[in-house]
Amino acid sequence: MSDDARDEETVTVAHGGGTGRTRDFLEDSVVPRFGGDADGLAVGLDALDDGAVHEVGDRSVVVTTDSHVVSPLSFPGGDIGRLAVSGTVNDLAVMGATEPLSLTCSLVVEEGVSVGLLEDVLDSMQAACEAAGCAVTTGDTKVMGSGDVDGVVINTTGVGVLPQGAHVPDAGLSPGDKLVVSGPVGDHGITLLAEREGFDIEGDLTSDVAPVNDLVAAALDAGTVTAMTDPTRGGLSTALNEMARKADVGALVDETAVPVRDSVAATGELLGIDPFDVANEGTVVFGVDAATADAVVDALRATPLGAEAAVVGEAVTEHTGRVVLDTGFGRRYLSEPEGEQLPRIC
Amino acid sequence: MSDDARDEETVTVAHGGGTGRTRDFLEDSVVPRFGGDADGLAVGLDALDDGAVHEVGDRSVVVTTDSHVVSPLSFPGGDIGRLAVSGTVNDLAVMGATEPLSLTCSLVVEEGVSVGLLEDVLDSMQAACEAAGCAVTTGDTKVMGSGDVDGVVINTTGVGVLPQGAHVPDAGLSPGDKLVVSGPVGDHGITLLAEREGFDIEGDLTSDVAPVNDLVAAALDAGTVTAMTDPTRGGLSTALNEMARKADVGALVDETAVPVRDSVAATGELLGIDPFDVANEGTVVFGVDAATADAVVDALRATPLGAEAAVVGEAVTEHTGRVVLDTGFGRRYLSEPEGEQLPRIC
Ligand SMILES: Nc1ncnc2c1ncn2[C@@H]1O[C@H](COP(=O)(O)OP(=O)(O)OP(=O)(O)O)[C@@H](O)[C@H]1O
Ligand SMILES: Nc1ncnc2c1ncn2[C@@H]1O[C@H](COP(=O)(O)OP(=O)(O)OP(=O)(O)O)[C@@H](O)[C@H]1O
Ligand SMILES: [Mg+2]
Ligand SMILES: [Mg+2]
Ligand SMILES: [Mg+2]
Ligand SMILES: [Mg+2]
Ligand SMILES: [Mg+2]
Ligand SMILES: [Mg+2]
Repeated sequence: MSDDARDEETVTVAHGGGTGRTRDFLEDSVVPRFGGDADGLAVGLDALDDGAVHEVGDRSVVVTTDSHVVSPLSFPGGDIGRLAVSGTVNDLAVMGATEPLSLTCSLVVEEGVSVGLLEDVLDSMQAACEAAGCAVTTGDTKVMGSGDVDGVVINTTGVGVLPQGAHVPDAGLSPGDKLVVSGPVGDHGITLLAEREGFDIEGDLTSDVAPVNDLVAAALDAGTVTAMTDPTRGGLSTALNEMARKADVGALVDETAVPVRDSVAATGELLGIDPFDVANEGTVVFGVDAATADAVVDALRATPLGAEAAVVGEAVTEHTGRVVLDTGFGRRYLSEPEGEQLPRIC
Repeated sequence: MSDDARDEETVTVAHGGGTGRTRDFLEDSVVPRFGGDADGLAVGLDALDDGAVHEVGDRSVVVTTDSHVVSPLSFPGGDIGRLAVSGTVNDLAVMGATEPLSLTCSLVVEEGVSVGLLEDVLDSMQAACEAAGCAVTTGDTKVMGSGDVDGVVINTTGVGVLPQGAHVPDAGLSPGDKLVVSGPVGDHGITLLAEREGFDIEGDLTSDVAPVNDLVAAALDAGTVTAMTDPTRGGLSTALNEMARKADVGALVDETAVPVRDSVAATGELLGIDPFDVANEGTVVFGVDAATADAVVDALRATPLGAEAAVVGEAVTEHTGRVVLDTGFGRRYLSEPEGEQLPRIC
């Protein structure tokens, strides 16, 4: 791009959507500056995985970070505090680090926010830490003037330690591997959107936001997990496309096998949003060696968050880098959502 | 505090100033929720040190985080990118971890910011990483609507690895230890403030923002460093008071020995701000065993950033938890700055 064009291009909401425009920005602007191999870097920035993996002695150190800008701060099923802890615990977990070593808490707060509200958020972070069996051990607190930031922004960064080589990348699918989801999809995104639009007709929408490290540990114990990610921004569609693309396989998915709550499906239809396309915050997509897929699903179902876990498809040699959805009536490609209809979803 | 009072109290700019009001907030609201001992936690949140230290096998893993909200984004001597990398590299360094394992880069960007500006910031992060010999290995990108955040906020979290027990706490001073500063104080805060007020009369003010990990490594090699911190928000005054308080010693400081640039002193006088009270972003305060203090100063002076390193005082048994300033005319307590005159300084 010419310098002039570069100077004129501006950041849009889509740059932060977690799908195509974000990936373009990462590939064009971030990876060329920060990417590249380095000694001991087992999973670097180029992989655009859920976190980085560094080899240290006989261990692997996993690092992951997310800033949370969700609006409203509180929503059915959670708030920014629970989201901030869960989001980072979950990125560690889907890299294979199910026992976080350290979590950070960096607050950027708008002047004038009530201390009570902030303490409620900290309470909820503490509760989520207890659920995940981890602790915040360091942090930072900055205040911006009224109008310089809206409410509260929280960055959480997580560090986990694994035996060396025990991490699980996004990219590990082989043809024949089963695709497993840990529970219903679309809950977080549809709930947030309905909440914002005053649209929760039945009042039974709830975000799935929760730490999934125990659920992931159960899966890792039960079988051979070859690939893992958490389908946050961009939803299941984006997660499956990325897994297929990164492993150079096709993904064949049985639409009717993917759990979606009735209320989520109905609200999604009303809002014109596909539950497959929106963020989840307590759900995992696994690639599992076919021989152990049933054992993994059984183990997931025995966990509190995994009752509706299901095999939803498999990796295939055809349709490299794409996701084919079998709708029950025919087949079509499942594409990633474009642009960004859902700013500040997480 | 009663619930009503708590609900009425609001966050002020002083909560983010890094001095007394911040410490009250941390002690009242953060440490009770996140603090406490845990297995393998060598330096936890209760210590309110520059970072946390976790013991893993025969190593110590240091974690530190800062969100950067500086305004303007670019200033004499640096910009938010250089600041974000240096700030976190420096917090790792002053814990003893002079070779960062991993740095994260979490961007929160206002819609409408030019991509060119963002790339300039990333360039400057990259340059600072090169200077520090480290790399960003993971990150996050969120966009907030125009008016929901002002410009760009960057969180950087750093992870470093040390031989177990090799970390250096804030709290390590013993009576007799010499106090050493690595260079002139006040540059960053006075430069930023002058820049905002259009007040740089001679045009020779420059922030000291820089990674100090090599400088710290030189000090650690040369002598016995008992305590270390970087005097960021709250400046040298706050850093010395915290070191004295945490170690239960007094600090006796020779005001005339503390290097302050003429331009910084003059501008500070005009602005009514004491250079001792404002943030530094490339300066370190050391406690050093007296027997090796000269060697440490010599080693610091041999580094590019340490040419004006000096012994400025010593730890004493009297005046526990306080800093006594010998002005050349007499002695007075050096107190920490109150409130917050300098929002968004880092
Ligand atoms: N500003 C950035 N600097 C460096 N790396 C980045 C940056 N933004 C994103 N990345 C990297 O890009 C990849 C994708 O990031 P993304 O935030 O979409 O992942 P995620 O955290 O798993 O998803 P979500 O943020 O929706 O929870 C990750 O590998 C991340 O480390
Ligand atoms: N929101 C928070 N949650 C948890 N710990 C926090 C939080 N804010 C600050 N802390 C902790 O309080 C201590 C002081 O934080 P502070 O940010 O002042 O240190 P620093 O990063 O060394 O200084 P500066 O931010 O000026 O560079 C640190 O131990 C930090 O981990
Ligand atoms: Mg993820
Ligand atoms: Mg994430
Ligand atoms: Mg800080
Ligand atoms: Mg510090
Ligand atoms: Mg700091
Ligand atoms: Mg992310």
